[in-house]
Amino acid sequence: MKSPDRKEAVQLQIQKARIGERIKQLAAFGLNAQGGVDRCFGSAHDQQARAWLSQLWQSIFQSSVRIDPVANLWIRYDTGQTLKPIVLGSHHDAVANGGKYDGAVGVLLATEVLQTLKEAKYPLRHPLMAVSFSAEEPNPYNVSTLGSRTITGILTKEDLDPVIHGATGEKITDTISRLGGDLEQLPDQILHPGAFAAFMECHIEQGRNLFDKGMSLAVVSTITGIYREKLVITGEANHAGTTLMENRHDALLAGAEISLALEEIARQLARNDVVATVGHFDVYPNSANIIPGKVELIAEIRTSDRRILQAIVEDFSEALALTEKKRAVNVSRTVILDQDAVPMHRTVQQALGQAIETMGEQSLILPSLAGHDSVHMAPITPTGMLFVPSINGKSHCPDEETELDDIVKAGNALVQAVIELDKELN
Amino acid sequence: MKSPDRKEAVQLQIQKARIGERIKQLAAFGLNAQGGVDRCFGSAHDQQARAWLSQLWQSIFQSSVRIDPVANLWIRYDTGQTLKPIVLGSHHDAVANGGKYDGAVGVLLATEVLQTLKEAKYPLRHPLMAVSFSAEEPNPYNVSTLGSRTITGILTKEDLDPVIHGATGEKITDTISRLGGDLEQLPDQILHPGAFAAFMECHIEQGRNLFDKGMSLAVVSTITGIYREKLVITGEANHAGTTLMENRHDALLAGAEISLALEEIARQLARNDVVATVGHFDVYPNSANIIPGKVELIAEIRTSDRRILQAIVEDFSEALALTEKKRAVNVSRTVILDQDAVPMHRTVQQALGQAIETMGEQSLILPSLAGHDSVHMAPITPTGMLFVPSINGKSHCPDEETELDDIVKAGNALVQAVIELDKELN
Repeated sequence: MKSPDRKEAVQLQIQKARIGERIKQLAAFGLNAQGGVDRCFGSAHDQQARAWLSQLWQSIFQSSVRIDPVANLWIRYDTGQTLKPIVLGSHHDAVANGGKYDGAVGVLLATEVLQTLKEAKYPLRHPLMAVSFSAEEPNPYNVSTLGSRTITGILTKEDLDPVIHGATGEKITDTISRLGGDLEQLPDQILHPGAFAAFMECHIEQGRNLFDKGMSLAVVSTITGIYREKLVITGEANHAGTTLMENRHDALLAGAEISLALEEIARQLARNDVVATVGHFDVYPNSANIIPGKVELIAEIRTSDRRILQAIVEDFSEALALTEKKRAVNVSRTVILDQDAVPMHRTVQQALGQAIETMGEQSLILPSLAGHDSVHMAPITPTGMLFVPSINGKSHCPDEETELDDIVKAGNALVQAVIELDKELN
Repeated sequence: MKSPDRKEAVQLQIQKARIGERIKQLAAFGLNAQGGVDRCFGSAHDQQARAWLSQLWQSIFQSSVRIDPVANLWIRYDTGQTLKPIVLGSHHDAVANGGKYDGAVGVLLATEVLQTLKEAKYPLRHPLMAVSFSAEEPNPYNVSTLGSRTITGILTKEDLDPVIHGATGEKITDTISRLGGDLEQLPDQILHPGAFAAFMECHIEQGRNLFDKGMSLAVVSTITGIYREKLVITGEANHAGTTLMENRHDALLAGAEISLALEEIARQLARNDVVATVGHFDVYPNSANIIPGKVELIAEIRTSDRRILQAIVEDFSEALALTEKKRAVNVSRTVILDQDAVPMHRTVQQALGQAIETMGEQSLILPSLAGHDSVHMAPITPTGMLFVPSINGKSHCPDEETELDDIVKAGNALVQAVIELDKELN
């Protein structure tokens, strides 16, 4: 069979009705009364989704689904090629009361792209694989990107042994077993650099960049660095009636100043690739009639630029010192996360950009300010990401939505990018 | 027996060693490793303290202790008089890891004053009573001033029926029974206005006024009004990475602004009888990587002056409106407490002031910025309070302390005030 020319390849289109239907079908597992999706890792809905996806894959590809040691799901489509596979995928779990698109789009487009190429009997040099990772999202075990971190060797069985479900107390190792994984096999099956030819993940942007510009696709340039500090502010708990205003060492008010200072520092940079957040804030003793004596908060900064991070941390330190002095409180700081930015691979970015251009589409180049499984695939294989718009920038909520037409464009771009990479990579 | 003249009466002194020893003895019930006292309502230590106090009273006054329907403890000393009794007392319970003086001083000085007058065979026109109220302090049942509110008819059996211990689940009605109370008897035994000739409570100030001025005694003019609002701030929970700073509706930052605004409003008044506090502050979903979508907080304002309260609430409303507009968040407000200030009775204040003057002591006239059982006794009988200093203004903590010499001065003042009121009141 001769290699098809570009025109022929461009005519290779995914099926809009089919991908639309499958997004609905997957969303049904955990759909709640508010229109949100409850499909946390290990839940009954997770299990149902896994069974459905496995069944779908087996029926399309006539081959068996592999459940790896951490219960990631893999399917392979090959025609006997010996090169390393090109892999597409994302995750099928969702945050509590989350949306129908986050993760699901990436898994179902991976499926659709493989199916489209299979049905076209498109002659590829590389085998293809699709993956759906376990527990990408925050979940009751407090371990996100579980599947990609574990199978790439970052999390070990020893790390996971003590982890339990915050509500039920189930051990995460038992959950993984329940889903068909087997951590005992992990050491033999860890993915090492060079495991694949390439990895691509399509994901909803979760921000407003594409939506505000009315565009359909963005090639991700880099996945943001994430820096987190835990701050413990120690003031003095005291009687809220008898302690005059000038005699107080109110930890809540200190925490309030600190949180507002961090916002101000990030706002003044006026960049669309830097954000800072205090999302976690606990007050002690948290009683209406006692001046708060302690606050524990987590300050998070996201940027892909180490110099910017450093400048923010310096300004933040100054703000902390001012509050410490003004209120005679103590602030102790612990860096709990300092994750470098992860650039996407140039070859994959170019293949995606080229594919979009060939389709006659415009696209953006955007950093990802969210973390993804791609962060952990990047050290293993050339990795790239494609964003589709989030309507009104919403994600992790029932209102999360992406136009089906945009998803179809993404699928067609992925088909072309696979064809490009298949030619280019060995 | 002729009525003793003033000089003779002034020589009537309480016994320093005895009151000092009893404060130590009562503190032993619940004394913990940090030097604090754990003697919450219904605890084993509460039971031990009750047994000890009952035994003490019975041995001094040779009469039986009365346990009223809500398990307040009462002892009576009379020589057959028919006028209504003059009552002294406070409470013997303590907050978790609280101090040795809060409540205890008032109960033990009541005991000491009665004992001193009894031993002197001082001829009184009124019977005397001492009382130790149940559950004045915050406790695991979330009902403070239980004893004084129930016996004066504010809390009914029906109010208490659903109340349970937050940790053990014990019904408060069962706890009261366990301590010898019987709520079935409550309707017949409620204290109505006119029940007593007068009530006096000595208490630690819990503030710094006396301590900072190096003085021993203050006559309380009024017990502060307490106003509390619950505020629910609704912003928009969103991804802390992908939501740019200018697109956020961060409920935590709105709560931070509001809390700082309330502080500023109270500070600008620069009065020593007005305080405002945000002591309770809950963030949702409280996750490091999610912009907070909701905050629930309680704002408390204490003042004895309704016009000041109104002015503060107006300023606060303006600040809320600014934050609502600036951040496009919604703030809903519910007044959950609006307790009027309770002035102490002029006659009792004068008797206390006169007694202190007769002793050649200086004293302050202070509002109480803490609530007390006296708030609930005031509608029933002419009520007055005497404050002794809190060293460094500390209370509700292991460091809570009052000099024994100051406690002795308070006891002697109470003896004189009883003698004054005994003459004056019918």
